[in-house]
Amino acid sequence: MEIELITIGTELLLGQVLDTHQQWLGQRLAERGCPLSRKLTVPDNGPAICGAVQTALGRADLVITTGGLGPTSDDVTRGLLADLLARPLGPDASVAAHIEGFFERHNRPMPGSVLVQAQVPEGAVVFPNEHGTAPGLAIEASPNPFRAGGGSAWLIMLPGPPRELRPMFDDQVLPFINKYLPLEKEFHCRILRSLGIGESMVEEMLLGPLQPLMDRGLELGFCARIGQVDIRLSGIDPGMPAIIAEAEAAIRAAIDKQIYGTDDETIELVVVGQLIATGETLAVAESCTGGFLGHHITNVP
Amino acid sequence: MEIELITIGTELLLGQVLDTHQQWLGQRLAERGCPLSRKLTVPDNGPAICGAVQTALGRADLVITTGGLGPTSDDVTRGLLADLLARPLGPDASVAAHIEGFFERHNRPMPGSVLVQAQVPEGAVVFPNEHGTAPGLAIEASPNPFRAGGGSAWLIMLPGPPRELRPMFDDQVLPFINKYLPLEKEFHCRILRSLGIGESMVEEMLLGPLQPLMDRGLELGFCARIGQVDIRLSGIDPGMPAIIAEAEAAIRAAIDKQIYGTDDETIELVVVGQLIATGETLAVAESCTGGFLGHHITNVP
Repeated sequence: MEIELITIGTELLLGQVLDTHQQWLGQRLAERGCPLSRKLTVPDNGPAICGAVQTALGRADLVITTGGLGPTSDDVTRGLLADLLARPLGPDASVAAHIEGFFERHNRPMPGSVLVQAQVPEGAVVFPNEHGTAPGLAIEASPNPFRAGGGSAWLIMLPGPPRELRPMFDDQVLPFINKYLPLEKEFHCRILRSLGIGESMVEEMLLGPLQPLMDRGLELGFCARIGQVDIRLSGIDPGMPAIIAEAEAAIRAAIDKQIYGTDDETIELVVVGQLIATGETLAVAESCTGGFLGHHITNVP
Repeated sequence: MEIELITIGTELLLGQVLDTHQQWLGQRLAERGCPLSRKLTVPDNGPAICGAVQTALGRADLVITTGGLGPTSDDVTRGLLADLLARPLGPDASVAAHIEGFFERHNRPMPGSVLVQAQVPEGAVVFPNEHGTAPGLAIEASPNPFRAGGGSAWLIMLPGPPRELRPMFDDQVLPFINKYLPLEKEFHCRILRSLGIGESMVEEMLLGPLQPLMDRGLELGFCARIGQVDIRLSGIDPGMPAIIAEAEAAIRAAIDKQIYGTDDETIELVVVGQLIATGETLAVAESCTGGFLGHHITNVP
């Protein structure tokens, strides 16, 4: 299944706001077995938004947009994409009631303009927003005007603020995707985290032993960090868990001393875990690192 | 000038690494007056990388890629894009000497495979990597096979790790861009940061007074954060500094009490500044916020 993410917002391209949606949604979708195929950021600008969504719907099974659903004049996503898919906007009474209730609960006067968020494209599925006013929306493009043959695709529009998007995605969108876009093949992924050995040396030692497994569909990726190299083993073949386990054994046979953890384990987590296990404490005297070590150690919950 | 950023790396789409290049490069380019037009992330996969770069070169004046220049088998950017632009790779003696020196200085054995990073596309400009081994590369597509009419475009490939990319960009790439792609129009931007008033209410109060300035080219953007709304005033017209100043005066006339800061000023910076100015101290007793307030206050340098 091909899934593309489009984050919408001029502030993201100007670097005024860090775009964390790619990482957060990417993790959620990868855990579920359908990693993101591609991610695009475009400004709050009609031709850029429509062009990006049109191209993505011509290619992917699911296109997720974030942002541009709010009440202000630069929030143009809803209207533009309703037009693009020829779905006239009409008022939705339950969304309007939710918005009015939101302002009442927060004891704030409600400007008339916020009710633009209760305008919903014809036939769209509505995801109520528990932490804000703009609902999420899903539209099935079927027949899909942007794909040769008209093969259908889903467009899901989500609000931009993370504290609105994240609970909406977990509580409503993931179950929706599981229902309407069931998985064909499961994605499996394991990361081995290594330390004290360069990226090219890691590969030189591993490529030989892993080649037969790569011929059977294993994908191998490396990511160099400061002093560390992450080794990513992944694939969608049904036999992949066994292939990944074989690959891990081969890697440990070659460079076991360099592997300090797997998947989400960071070096600070491992260090703190060992300190707790042995009842030891750590004092750091730092120069030139500006508290870098202490910061990472104290960040461990 | 149109600039597109393409970050390359499967780990970015899986959410295993936060993609900070969009924010960092976006800020640097916006400060220089040429904001990013669009940003794409693609996996370490030939057709995805080539398709993205080809489309971008057909549209933009400058395409910047990050990642995939390292020594391992998933680092495919250099070879793929040299092929795409029909520039055969050949060894570069100065890059090879730099890589050998890098391993010598770090007192580590050098695997033969790292010298793939000294393969440089014909006619490319080389940006030496002061903090790693993979050099940055610039190629002018001229004539540009991907644009009707053949209008030229630059492709700049940068290494993925931020500690290699950032100094390379500031010290070498920005001067290069200033020389080869001089600005036609300057971009001006000012942010007013407001507190305690909703996004829709902010707009309702401002849209009337600002409309005449928007008719003269002012772009108005809003970004809602927790309890806050950023108001962004921007434009490229030569008269824009005066127009932005007029807009700021109109906004302050309407909601001065709600404006706590401008541009990079955060609420915690302003609060700490006032505490220092008045010689007062702050104690916070937090419940349900998990030290959120204290964290933000102590983050102020």
